[in-house]
Amino acid sequence: MNVTLLLSGDELIDGRIRDANGAFLARRLHERGHDVDRIEIVGDDLDDLVECLRESRERADAVVMSGGLGSTGDDLTRHALAEAFSRDLRLDDQAVAWIASFWERVGREAPVQPYPEAFLPAGTRALPNPVGLAPGIALEEGPFRVVALPGVPSELRGMVEAGVLDVLGEGKGARVERTVHAMGLAESEAAVRLGALLERGRQPLIGITCGQGRLTLRVQAESDDPDVARRLVEDGVRAIRERLGAHVFGEGEVSLAEVVLEQLRRRGATLAVAESLTGGEIGHLITEVPGASDVFLADFVCYANEAKEALLGVPGATLRAHGAVSLETAVAMARGARERTGADFAVSTTGIAGPTGGSAEKPVGLVWTAVAWAGGERTLRRVHAGSRHDVKQKAAHQGLDLLRRTLAESAEMDGGA
Amino acid sequence: MNVTLLLSGDELIDGRIRDANGAFLARRLHERGHDVDRIEIVGDDLDDLVECLRESRERADAVVMSGGLGSTGDDLTRHALAEAFSRDLRLDDQAVAWIASFWERVGREAPVQPYPEAFLPAGTRALPNPVGLAPGIALEEGPFRVVALPGVPSELRGMVEAGVLDVLGEGKGARVERTVHAMGLAESEAAVRLGALLERGRQPLIGITCGQGRLTLRVQAESDDPDVARRLVEDGVRAIRERLGAHVFGEGEVSLAEVVLEQLRRRGATLAVAESLTGGEIGHLITEVPGASDVFLADFVCYANEAKEALLGVPGATLRAHGAVSLETAVAMARGARERTGADFAVSTTGIAGPTGGSAEKPVGLVWTAVAWAGGERTLRRVHAGSRHDVKQKAAHQGLDLLRRTLAESAEMDGGA
Repeated sequence: MNVTLLLSGDELIDGRIRDANGAFLARRLHERGHDVDRIEIVGDDLDDLVECLRESRERADAVVMSGGLGSTGDDLTRHALAEAFSRDLRLDDQAVAWIASFWERVGREAPVQPYPEAFLPAGTRALPNPVGLAPGIALEEGPFRVVALPGVPSELRGMVEAGVLDVLGEGKGARVERTVHAMGLAESEAAVRLGALLERGRQPLIGITCGQGRLTLRVQAESDDPDVARRLVEDGVRAIRERLGAHVFGEGEVSLAEVVLEQLRRRGATLAVAESLTGGEIGHLITEVPGASDVFLADFVCYANEAKEALLGVPGATLRAHGAVSLETAVAMARGARERTGADFAVSTTGIAGPTGGSAEKPVGLVWTAVAWAGGERTLRRVHAGSRHDVKQKAAHQGLDLLRRTLAESAEMDGGA
Repeated sequence: MNVTLLLSGDELIDGRIRDANGAFLARRLHERGHDVDRIEIVGDDLDDLVECLRESRERADAVVMSGGLGSTGDDLTRHALAEAFSRDLRLDDQAVAWIASFWERVGREAPVQPYPEAFLPAGTRALPNPVGLAPGIALEEGPFRVVALPGVPSELRGMVEAGVLDVLGEGKGARVERTVHAMGLAESEAAVRLGALLERGRQPLIGITCGQGRLTLRVQAESDDPDVARRLVEDGVRAIRERLGAHVFGEGEVSLAEVVLEQLRRRGATLAVAESLTGGEIGHLITEVPGASDVFLADFVCYANEAKEALLGVPGATLRAHGAVSLETAVAMARGARERTGADFAVSTTGIAGPTGGSAEKPVGLVWTAVAWAGGERTLRRVHAGSRHDVKQKAAHQGLDLLRRTLAESAEMDGGA
């Protein structure tokens, strides 16, 4: 199916916001075997929306829209659909019920009745929004399909994950894809190790993207025979794992924190965290994973030196002799977190996030991480490039990855998984 | 001038890459007083490019293109321009000279002669590329203008910074813009309070976007007289502040954490945090702000009940009688964090992030936050919708906003700023 994406919002065409929905929708549609022919981004303008819908109908088999489903005057999607497909707007019972239950769930009064979000073009269907208030809209006109989704990325994603794109059916032949994640290598280092595997135009096609020190390799193949495509992708994944070794930490939607939590859970072990420069980011990443409470006991974010001493028992002498950003402080923080919580493993971070505070000896971006467990301590020193935010992100992932490798290697030594 | 952005690349429409050029170009054009009417993203396809160019010519005054200027078979921008404007491709002397000097500079041999990147549609002009190899193209047809730029973001930005958009001239008079941020109101609640201020087509034009419980109101006005535009925007901002009152927390690029840190700094006060469901997110948001260490002492992320007791001194009886997610536990956490660090203010969060763990009495999304200070305690109960990630984000902002309001009101009571 040829699908046009039609994204609306004044904030998207005047440059206030960089669109996040187009690439997400395109990837999901691509995975289902559909082709996206165009992504059109327009402002909150009724005429533009109607014109784009009419043009798309000439050219494509379906349109997926995002934005304009809210309750204010610049929310025009339902009006554009009504005009482009010559239908009246009517209050939809299903939408009314969902919106009522949303307000009930959050325990507040709806400000306007009847709900503006519940007016749908006649003959269309409301699509459930598990995250937010405004339902989506599914419209059919002969073989042509429209799916209208909210512009808020978390709502749009929640609806897509819940299956709203099923309205479009399945696309052509088999397009198989897997992603492999690795840590601790620069993109160029990985490219050297992977060599010819990265050549364009080959099957499977392998692409690299990177972020927060994490590399993601996307392996894809197409064939009329799904088994052939699947085998090609499997070969590619196997070759990547051989060449990148222990740097590979997982596949698909998995996060580094999930991998670490699973390693801990398998051993029946618990975790404590001690953070300085990362400021709570490791705890945040860990608690993004449902069920983290099985293994995660506590996180001490000790920004001030006094807090490192009082809450983690880092000796004042260590701080004075080596400074807060040092191997010694990192180790003392991890030990302190372990002792004060009784956790089996503890990971710590200390470093200089910037933009100021660096020196020749200890530059902005310098990060020490440590892991403490019954077997001793392990540390890692890195200097990260980028903004304060980047350095914090990379440092948090550096700590989690040191923990992952420590867990993997200590499990091997114990002879257990 | 009405400008269409036409961005091309297969990687943009199959979701491999999230476009970075559209928002950048839109912002730059907007600042120069131009309007972007659409952003169109197409694959590396000659027919699509030609069709989009022809459509744009009917509708807009200019097109800015990105992508397709390289030397491989999928670089089709020059061919599309030649076809859409009925011109031949010719070797351009200026382009040849620049490309020759590029290869000389990098000390390598050009792989193909004559350079494919030097073929330009007749009557067009090569635009210098200070970062990379392929020059841009400027085309004029009557009053209509096309500027074609490379797709690599660093090259495109380098050319824009070097002034290639001058080809489009200056746009209309003064365009003044301010953004106002508010917390603690749903979008629809704000819409009711703002009423006619949100009507389309009025001056100043006010738009709302929302995320993580935060509302952003953008106020803009245009006029030949910059003073008039400025006054219109000021009136709009004043009206918003009157109607949303204490919900407004700042303007422009400011974050809620920045506002809170500034409030604390002004009073010479320090802060501690105690987090349960937010898992470190409040600490993370606070430490995103450079210089947070002035006021931020420590954050206790106590996920396990044992940690709440041992590290924060939450009485076991409180946990047993009211549960971890309760007003009483939130207050005890904030008190504990304050006592153990000596901080002047402490904020706490406890709640149910989901996706499981809710009950009829305490549903997923229920969040209690508390602030403790010399003046006592203050609490806030909310039920948030959305994914685990959304609930955590909204809860973290709920805690920061409760702190902000407590700081503002206690400063008033003290008679200070």
